[in-house]
Amino acid sequence: MALKNSRQYLESVKRLAPRVYVGGKWVSNLLDHPVTRSMVLANAAVYDLAQDESCQSVMVADSHLTGNPVNRNVHVCRSIRDLDMRQEMALLTSRTVGTCNYRCVGCDAINGLASTTWEMDLDLATDYNARFNRWLTGIQNGDLAVSGAITDAKGDRKKRPSQQDEPDVYVHVTEKLSDGIVVRGAKVSQSGAIGAHETLVLPGGGLREGEEDFALAFAVPNGSPGLTYICQYNAYSAEREMAEDESELGNPLFGQRETSTMVFDNVFIPWDRVFLCGETKYCGKLVTRFAKTHRMNCGGACKVGFADLIIGATLLAAEYNGVEKIPHIQDKLIEMVRLSETSHACAIAAAVKGREEPQGSGVFMPDDLFGNVAKLNIAHGFWEIMKLAGDIGGGLLVTMPRLKDLEDPEVGPLLRKYLQSAAPAADRLKAAKFLQHWTAGLHGPGTWHGAGAPQGQRVMIYHLTDFEAKKKLAKKLMSLRNLESM
Amino acid sequence: MALKNSRQYLESVKRLAPRVYVGGKWVSNLLDHPVTRSMVLANAAVYDLAQDESCQSVMVADSHLTGNPVNRNVHVCRSIRDLDMRQEMALLTSRTVGTCNYRCVGCDAINGLASTTWEMDLDLATDYNARFNRWLTGIQNGDLAVSGAITDAKGDRKKRPSQQDEPDVYVHVTEKLSDGIVVRGAKVSQSGAIGAHETLVLPGGGLREGEEDFALAFAVPNGSPGLTYICQYNAYSAEREMAEDESELGNPLFGQRETSTMVFDNVFIPWDRVFLCGETKYCGKLVTRFAKTHRMNCGGACKVGFADLIIGATLLAAEYNGVEKIPHIQDKLIEMVRLSETSHACAIAAAVKGREEPQGSGVFMPDDLFGNVAKLNIAHGFWEIMKLAGDIGGGLLVTMPRLKDLEDPEVGPLLRKYLQSAAPAADRLKAAKFLQHWTAGLHGPGTWHGAGAPQGQRVMIYHLTDFEAKKKLAKKLMSLRNLESM
Amino acid sequence: MALKNSRQYLESVKRLAPRVYVGGKWVSNLLDHPVTRSMVLANAAVYDLAQDESCQSVMVADSHLTGNPVNRNVHVCRSIRDLDMRQEMALLTSRTVGTCNYRCVGCDAINGLASTTWEMDLDLATDYNARFNRWLTGIQNGDLAVSGAITDAKGDRKKRPSQQDEPDVYVHVTEKLSDGIVVRGAKVSQSGAIGAHETLVLPGGGLREGEEDFALAFAVPNGSPGLTYICQYNAYSAEREMAEDESELGNPLFGQRETSTMVFDNVFIPWDRVFLCGETKYCGKLVTRFAKTHRMNCGGACKVGFADLIIGATLLAAEYNGVEKIPHIQDKLIEMVRLSETSHACAIAAAVKGREEPQGSGVFMPDDLFGNVAKLNIAHGFWEIMKLAGDIGGGLLVTMPRLKDLEDPEVGPLLRKYLQSAAPAADRLKAAKFLQHWTAGLHGPGTWHGAGAPQGQRVMIYHLTDFEAKKKLAKKLMSLRNLESM
Amino acid sequence: MALKNSRQYLESVKRLAPRVYVGGKWVSNLLDHPVTRSMVLANAAVYDLAQDESCQSVMVADSHLTGNPVNRNVHVCRSIRDLDMRQEMALLTSRTVGTCNYRCVGCDAINGLASTTWEMDLDLATDYNARFNRWLTGIQNGDLAVSGAITDAKGDRKKRPSQQDEPDVYVHVTEKLSDGIVVRGAKVSQSGAIGAHETLVLPGGGLREGEEDFALAFAVPNGSPGLTYICQYNAYSAEREMAEDESELGNPLFGQRETSTMVFDNVFIPWDRVFLCGETKYCGKLVTRFAKTHRMNCGGACKVGFADLIIGATLLAAEYNGVEKIPHIQDKLIEMVRLSETSHACAIAAAVKGREEPQGSGVFMPDDLFGNVAKLNIAHGFWEIMKLAGDIGGGLLVTMPRLKDLEDPEVGPLLRKYLQSAAPAADRLKAAKFLQHWTAGLHGPGTWHGAGAPQGQRVMIYHLTDFEAKKKLAKKLMSLRNLESM
Repeated sequence: MALKNSRQYLESVKRLAPRVYVGGKWVSNLLDHPVTRSMVLANAAVYDLAQDESCQSVMVADSHLTGNPVNRNVHVCRSIRDLDMRQEMALLTSRTVGTCNYRCVGCDAINGLASTTWEMDLDLATDYNARFNRWLTGIQNGDLAVSGAITDAKGDRKKRPSQQDEPDVYVHVTEKLSDGIVVRGAKVSQSGAIGAHETLVLPGGGLREGEEDFALAFAVPNGSPGLTYICQYNAYSAEREMAEDESELGNPLFGQRETSTMVFDNVFIPWDRVFLCGETKYCGKLVTRFAKTHRMNCGGACKVGFADLIIGATLLAAEYNGVEKIPHIQDKLIEMVRLSETSHACAIAAAVKGREEPQGSGVFMPDDLFGNVAKLNIAHGFWEIMKLAGDIGGGLLVTMPRLKDLEDPEVGPLLRKYLQSAAPAADRLKAAKFLQHWTAGLHGPGTWHGAGAPQGQRVMIYHLTDFEAKKKLAKKLMSLRNLESM
Repeated sequence: MALKNSRQYLESVKRLAPRVYVGGKWVSNLLDHPVTRSMVLANAAVYDLAQDESCQSVMVADSHLTGNPVNRNVHVCRSIRDLDMRQEMALLTSRTVGTCNYRCVGCDAINGLASTTWEMDLDLATDYNARFNRWLTGIQNGDLAVSGAITDAKGDRKKRPSQQDEPDVYVHVTEKLSDGIVVRGAKVSQSGAIGAHETLVLPGGGLREGEEDFALAFAVPNGSPGLTYICQYNAYSAEREMAEDESELGNPLFGQRETSTMVFDNVFIPWDRVFLCGETKYCGKLVTRFAKTHRMNCGGACKVGFADLIIGATLLAAEYNGVEKIPHIQDKLIEMVRLSETSHACAIAAAVKGREEPQGSGVFMPDDLFGNVAKLNIAHGFWEIMKLAGDIGGGLLVTMPRLKDLEDPEVGPLLRKYLQSAAPAADRLKAAKFLQHWTAGLHGPGTWHGAGAPQGQRVMIYHLTDFEAKKKLAKKLMSLRNLESM
Repeated sequence: MALKNSRQYLESVKRLAPRVYVGGKWVSNLLDHPVTRSMVLANAAVYDLAQDESCQSVMVADSHLTGNPVNRNVHVCRSIRDLDMRQEMALLTSRTVGTCNYRCVGCDAINGLASTTWEMDLDLATDYNARFNRWLTGIQNGDLAVSGAITDAKGDRKKRPSQQDEPDVYVHVTEKLSDGIVVRGAKVSQSGAIGAHETLVLPGGGLREGEEDFALAFAVPNGSPGLTYICQYNAYSAEREMAEDESELGNPLFGQRETSTMVFDNVFIPWDRVFLCGETKYCGKLVTRFAKTHRMNCGGACKVGFADLIIGATLLAAEYNGVEKIPHIQDKLIEMVRLSETSHACAIAAAVKGREEPQGSGVFMPDDLFGNVAKLNIAHGFWEIMKLAGDIGGGLLVTMPRLKDLEDPEVGPLLRKYLQSAAPAADRLKAAKFLQHWTAGLHGPGTWHGAGAPQGQRVMIYHLTDFEAKKKLAKKLMSLRNLESM
Repeated sequence: MALKNSRQYLESVKRLAPRVYVGGKWVSNLLDHPVTRSMVLANAAVYDLAQDESCQSVMVADSHLTGNPVNRNVHVCRSIRDLDMRQEMALLTSRTVGTCNYRCVGCDAINGLASTTWEMDLDLATDYNARFNRWLTGIQNGDLAVSGAITDAKGDRKKRPSQQDEPDVYVHVTEKLSDGIVVRGAKVSQSGAIGAHETLVLPGGGLREGEEDFALAFAVPNGSPGLTYICQYNAYSAEREMAEDESELGNPLFGQRETSTMVFDNVFIPWDRVFLCGETKYCGKLVTRFAKTHRMNCGGACKVGFADLIIGATLLAAEYNGVEKIPHIQDKLIEMVRLSETSHACAIAAAVKGREEPQGSGVFMPDDLFGNVAKLNIAHGFWEIMKLAGDIGGGLLVTMPRLKDLEDPEVGPLLRKYLQSAAPAADRLKAAKFLQHWTAGLHGPGTWHGAGAPQGQRVMIYHLTDFEAKKKLAKKLMSLRNLESM
């Protein structure tokens, strides 16, 4: 079977040559810099999941293009069951790597494009869908990692793309040539783009007439000329860079979610990689379809996997401290489960109440209302879970010494003596470090904004709800005079 | 087809002769007293739903006993789809009558017994299941209304059933005869028992060895000798009793959830109506199976129907006041939808992740964790929804005059003049009265305790969660040194 | 001392002859109708508090007009200590009667007018303050009950007072005569106006130029010609009306908060009772000063008294059921205390951080920000307290029979036998009835909207916060390069 | 006046020689290592506040020992006003340095000891109070920085101090000599101990008979022989250590709260520095008095200062992005203010409702219930504030590049071009970095556990509440039959 394993993926990464800048340095080999390396290793681990027999019902699907088994990360959902397995994949990958499945956004972008290019071809007699299917067949056959780029830099939020003082804050076409287009602009917060073989670029939102230059969807290979990745850099990057050994970090191999600002400086995209160009009317649809899929997955299910890890580590910490039987501790664990399973339930409901969209396309999309509700619930719930984990984990989570201090000849014995509890100090500190990573790091704002800030979901819920039907139900009941009037 | 309509049901109610006491009076005809009448009319309306073609996929199922179409309220779930339709029925009925589907508890009791009697017969070579199926066939063929009685009076909660000063606070066997058993005790908070043709009585919880007399499940026909129904009575009962005309009430025809305390004073139950007697070991299973089903339905889906009504009426009130476009009003409506749809999602997840239990029984039970989460979410969510409805509805909800004051020759014109808004005063007050019923009445504590108080769900979540698996996931990730160690 | 006791107040009420309509009936004697009677009795009980030596530091103050001791309900705050005692009075009265101190709004209106009339006289050389002081001297000397009327009927909320189709939905001047003015309109939700000797009428909000006719503050004696009180009427009114005996009700003597819609049909107000007439510019100030005072008292402190009653009854219910030692029960009681004391703390902070306003007036006003925060906290907190009380109280709160059923010769013994717990059934049901009144009645929306809906407080917080100062603090700290730059 | 300024304090720090270990390195000069330096600079800035005339009413008080003006950080509260200024100091210092006032715990320990040593001398005829006053006079005269050490390492939380496998996990006496005592053990999470001239060591909680060796309070000078400080070390430490220049950090000069584990390896303490030794009965009192003071300050007021900074920066970020006028943004700012001011109100109430304790001691303690409520509110509120700041700050908060990348010749221009908004990229990123420090760092668990984990406050609230009084109030009201029975 053509599915790549981690070794094969890592080999392929060595052949990539993106222009990557990380906190003051250009990185020539992604596996050399500890920060970019963590991102690549997470991808590798997700590749291996598809090799694990016990995971294959989730990780592997049959391509509707070739009939061959493909990694679900590059599969188009063709049934309710596909949707259900898609959200289960989100849960499985996040609980396995404790960070992004860096192919997740790309997967949801693939689904948004599968649906929307089909509709455009039908409506406009374009051949976007055929192009897209050719491109996707290649991706599936090569089992390539595809990331997705949605969020433009945006500039002044009060202004539309075409009104910005600096027009390049939105990705746009600068030239249309016979063999392709030239694009300029920047996409921010791009998870895992540096280690992906390709990136699918979508518009950042709905567009209006007159904004045709910004109406743009295309695939761009890693390291295309003109493309620069400026990576995020923060305390956790510094800690990883300074660490003598990954094992002293909270999530040793896979780290935090790593993103970059992708700068497109007149990047050439051949036409066979362009899947929307100028059709403003379809941008809203495309983005909505991407979003509803992504909110089910990244919003609903993925964070449940994180929560599983946090809940597990919190209980470990409780046991190490000797407090696991105390009622308020148990009550907090229950609350963490409630919050997490609520989100999972919403993701499941989004999947099973999904439907073909547009009809005839063969592409299945999750229920939009439940997807938005899933994301909204976990946005709040995840902060609550962090808070409760921090409660049980204790002050040590933020006042603990460096893990490797345990090995220092002078200080190590002191720590081992004084920080022992119902468990050796090393176990206790290891669990604390893991929880530090979750409760005192980037996950709060990250989870909140991933798959779109909650206000976006609220607006969607307003538009998706059939308020008229509810008014009618109420009106009928409040005015009943007898059974026959029902 | 044998499914009853409202008229046929009402006819049958006239033939019932329960011993019913309501707030100081014995009621001889359930349709004469305005309080008992509202309960019966709600049941009647639910009967009619099964006649409505657009509702039949939800309301009607094929009996596994006879193959005939039966009302889903007396159907045993035999598939995931049955479970899904069961929760959709809960939503449909509650949004239609704005109060209990009074056959709901009975339906879930039927499912609990279908599963548990099957298991007992397998394990113990009893013939409970055969008996039960015979009884159920009669119920289905007659399309009878069955209520369910679970909660004992309980006495001092610190003491087990057998330790109570007054043993009769738990329903129990006082005598076993050749042709049946004699039972004594009381079940409280029995929704719709007065208007049901039969009531299924289940134990109130798990039981231990030595508590055999309390291990008891049976069906009792309405009005059996020795059976007394003492109805709840409160401000809303008084208001209904005093009303000149139902139309001046918040939920005109169907009112509040009406319950009674059922007192069993040496009631004789023939053996063919006894479905568990002394098998303490199976009581916990039976109650858990009932509860998981009921939490999906009454906990998850039913309240979504109520929420639909509240949301609809709240928006009406906002429009009548002219405030429906204000951002904070819209945001509150969104929040109401979020809370309500979250609960629906959990009910759906409970249904679609359900399974046959026990294997071989053919009976499908919802996923227990999601069912408990559904109930827990709506318990809190419903108070929140009430609060938000009260916010938008305005102070008028609790300071409004009597609806019929609008008709008074002197006062009516004053009210019509001064309480007009963006709508006539009558519309505005009608909507306010409807919301008064929801936000200033019995629904807060009622929703909280229906299907069991939230602490019960929390305890269940603790027991249902696989914490060891989560610990293992966390431990693995925090200790990784390389990909191969995954 | 001239302070009235309850007997003297009740005597004076017998001499009142308001035009009062309650749920379909005109009431000629307030003490005859059970609903109006409950309101009057609550007022009477508050009168008696000022006779109770242990309460006099709270209930009695020295008049700045006469130097004599006066009931604090008609006192103008002249110091921080006055403010602190004012909020303590709110707590004391509400925990004593379990319903409104019906002189509370009037007291806060008196304070708003004392401050604003002083300022108008200073600015405009009017003599409103002198008039007001003359009027107030009479009130204090007679120890009269003064209610306050603020909220206009408002009509279509999208429109200003002068734009309404029906101009009478806001109280306004229709004629100015040499000896007084004529007013028309309606004030809604007037707590205790029917049993007050006088009502202070204030504008409902800020007004603009061109709205002079609505700029109006005056005192109107109970039962003035042209004045009609249309009382609220709801389930709790019906229950009280139907009760054979007040002792079967939740709050036997004092009941729910009782309000009325006051209709002014060309009511003549002599000039010496007019305290603002046409000065639109001062309406916002007047209302804000009233509101800040009322939010401290009604918002912050009053509900703490209610919470004390609810917490006490909830613990009683827990003890009667035998569950008071269970950790989650204790945790819920703690939460109720936290919510309640938070509100009290905010009221205290509002009082002790108060100040003279305007400077030179001698009138002390609470801190506005803390007052708004107090009200906002308890608006949410009270619903939470209701929820928790309902949790511990149990389903019985809404499914209990009528209290007097305990006395029925047939049904009584059954209830006494079956509903006994760790306490006799009568105690248990009494506590349940009391909690029913709090958790399944009017208090949710009532508390929310009393002293203004929370959105009003949110808007005030926005305007009261010095955001620029906070920006400056942040900016300074984020840009520091060395200590000297601080 | 003898109050030190920052320069004088920094001079004095150069003369300290503590044994300090930070993330793998021994630090010989606290001003050389960027992490320890940040702690020392924060202390220095707090010294300067007392030099600032506009702050002196808050920062300076008159010593009751010498009559001289002293820094309030080493002052004993002798009045309600002192308590109020004490909490205002907490607010002022935290909004100035954006991290701990590292003299805060010491100040509250001084107050706990002032009260408890006075009581011990009265009860036991010891001379602890005289000793303590001599020591404190020296501290005040030298304006020394005193930190406080409370929390023991604790080992297995299921076991009492004397039952631990490793007895040294609690600080205890190992030898009593004629001139002093020898102590061993470890105190964890010690804020600012490394840069304090002295540390006051208190027991970690109440103790029982038989635990005399752990009943111990004393002052220990910085760098005493046998004393080792093992500093916390985490991502933020690494980032500071790696930074080329402090200005690229979120809180440039003052950083995160820096703590250490203080290891006492047979440290000798002369008797005149020992303030409790063996009197187990007074440990609970001492700790409770410390705690109630600290919960008012660290719990209530300090976090309000942090919130001011966060709110200010959040509004800046909103303005830079051009979204500050959007209703939901404004609503979130309001919510942040509400949460923060609620906590401030509770601190104020704790102060103004404080009292002398014990009577005759002259020491004023805040109200315990309000102090606990303050801490509990902000524990939850601060997470909420972080969440809301993260919402408005945007994804950039966690995906932004390194600040100094703006200076890179190649990457800098790209960032300046693409990340400009309604403000230049540099301003926007500076604000984002500041918010990153608050929302994606140590402050969540830090705020939660500082001044004790919330469960401790809940337990205290349970013990501090007069539930019997509340039961009595409820019982009286529910049983009233007439006014005279009140």
